[in-house]
Amino acid sequence: MKKPLLLRSIAKEPVERFPVWLMRQAGRYMPQYQEIRRRAKDFLSLCKDVELSVKVSLLPLELLGVDAVILFSDILVPLEPLGAKIEFTEGEGPKVLWSGKLSDLKPYDPDENGYVYEVVRRLKEFSKDVPVIGFAGGPFTLASYLIEGSPIRELKKTKIFMWEREYDFKRLMEVLTDTVYSFLSRQIEAGADLVQIFDSWTLYISRSDYEELVFPYVKELVGRIKKFYEVPVIYFFRGSSSFIDLASQTGADVLSVDWSVDLSVEMVRFENVFQGNLDPAVLYSGEETVKMKTLELLRSIPRRTGYIFNLGHGIAPDMDLKKVKLLVETVKRFGIEY
Amino acid sequence: MKKPLLLRSIAKEPVERFPVWLMRQAGRYMPQYQEIRRRAKDFLSLCKDVELSVKVSLLPLELLGVDAVILFSDILVPLEPLGAKIEFTEGEGPKVLWSGKLSDLKPYDPDENGYVYEVVRRLKEFSKDVPVIGFAGGPFTLASYLIEGSPIRELKKTKIFMWEREYDFKRLMEVLTDTVYSFLSRQIEAGADLVQIFDSWTLYISRSDYEELVFPYVKELVGRIKKFYEVPVIYFFRGSSSFIDLASQTGADVLSVDWSVDLSVEMVRFENVFQGNLDPAVLYSGEETVKMKTLELLRSIPRRTGYIFNLGHGIAPDMDLKKVKLLVETVKRFGIEY
Repeated sequence: MKKPLLLRSIAKEPVERFPVWLMRQAGRYMPQYQEIRRRAKDFLSLCKDVELSVKVSLLPLELLGVDAVILFSDILVPLEPLGAKIEFTEGEGPKVLWSGKLSDLKPYDPDENGYVYEVVRRLKEFSKDVPVIGFAGGPFTLASYLIEGSPIRELKKTKIFMWEREYDFKRLMEVLTDTVYSFLSRQIEAGADLVQIFDSWTLYISRSDYEELVFPYVKELVGRIKKFYEVPVIYFFRGSSSFIDLASQTGADVLSVDWSVDLSVEMVRFENVFQGNLDPAVLYSGEETVKMKTLELLRSIPRRTGYIFNLGHGIAPDMDLKKVKLLVETVKRFGIEY
Repeated sequence: MKKPLLLRSIAKEPVERFPVWLMRQAGRYMPQYQEIRRRAKDFLSLCKDVELSVKVSLLPLELLGVDAVILFSDILVPLEPLGAKIEFTEGEGPKVLWSGKLSDLKPYDPDENGYVYEVVRRLKEFSKDVPVIGFAGGPFTLASYLIEGSPIRELKKTKIFMWEREYDFKRLMEVLTDTVYSFLSRQIEAGADLVQIFDSWTLYISRSDYEELVFPYVKELVGRIKKFYEVPVIYFFRGSSSFIDLASQTGADVLSVDWSVDLSVEMVRFENVFQGNLDPAVLYSGEETVKMKTLELLRSIPRRTGYIFNLGHGIAPDMDLKKVKLLVETVKRFGIEY
């Protein structure tokens, strides 16, 4: 098998065009997903049904022609073996039940997330030519789900916990760093060609809190993965403009950024491979605008290799499959047609 | 009258301590505000009642001992003379009704906001020793209120408008730049010692959209004020880490930043006077933490003058007056006790 485009780009080898995949590329915006989703009792059952999860993971390959498949799952699943109860109710955000006591967390047993590695294994069988991405939430993002219980944007409870119970917070971050490492290493052993760490909730915290209470754990996590495995690590973090210099020191091969940064500047300042950057709200506009904004971004990228096209955050359920297709096509044609 | 502390700090003259005031320092978190609020029919009537607005504006002087009073009003009031209908319903966000047609906007008549200038005039009479701050929303923040109609964080409608109807959006930004200039100049003529422009909604837009569609108008606005008046201009903008270099080029004397930046770095990089930076969520923690986080920030400021203590965003209604008092006291004692 020839080295896939996406992995060549990460290795900064010559590429014929920018590789493309999209965060939440398999999801509610797809009628085909909805159809599969109805076959499972609830969202969590869907994640645990290997057969269905594989089907869902592969949808974007068939429907969009992206350059990578990402395991279909949810960042909350490793919290269950830790002893937290997770609930997904249709139309609401997820709920996480935890007492707030560290002593109520069980030692993480990665076997309890066996269905995840099984999905990765099957995906590797089906998808011969495109790499399979494994993933996990970042320790901070998982901590804030545990602490908030339900999605509260401002992270009020998390911040109070962080500031008032700093010792406990650091212990929690250690537990979650170990958990994520263990969870990701099993995905890699099951065949994941690369892994992405999702730190979606960092947007709301201060530069100084990130530096002291988030960065060291991400660095530790990435360091451990890189020490034992050969696979590239992508680090996705919101509030990119605030933390980009620190993110670049985590050891992650790829920095996946939101739309708060200008890649024509950052890709010159930092040697990392970059991913993302397009404001997903572009997908709410008309077709001409989708095309125009995508091309605008592509033209601003200062080098051909070492960049993976993606959005600055995930696709939303109310977005239009037709526009997503157009987006992917536009990236794939760039450099050939233009 | 001796030049007030806050104005000396902005002029980078010697100061005995950091000046302090807080965004939304007069508001729902104060029982005394609630009491005055009940005397008016609704929130908009309160803003239009000069007597009551003056009383509310002065509360933080009496209760907190801050170094500036800010006119009590709402950033939406200049939208009314433009022909938009504004509604404040208790417990909900404000609603703005506008057809989306530029032809439905009337030429701004600053006289229709006469009650605002009257409040400023009275405040100048009452408050001999501390400066009076006038304020307005930034053109972009006002545009997004007009376009969204009701607060939608993601600014979905605003972005679509911006991208799909760029010509109209630019015309709208011109109208609002003229409006805000006219509104602020009347506040200055009524006696405001300095003015603050609030761009609270920039957090959600991309670096490139800010650069092209927001920055030029803020620069034009600040330039016009500085051309005709001597008063300092404070520019408050969310998403500070993303736009700080551009904000520094607007001509504003003071950059009021959120908690996404590290002032010990930015105050060395940029010559502007700075304001703000403390995550307001600190006020949800215990007294020890309020004190500690405040001192942590104060100790990180690389110079004594040229910095105004403030939060990175406004005080929320569910915050505790006692803690706000403690915050202000801590700042006022810093450099004397510590």
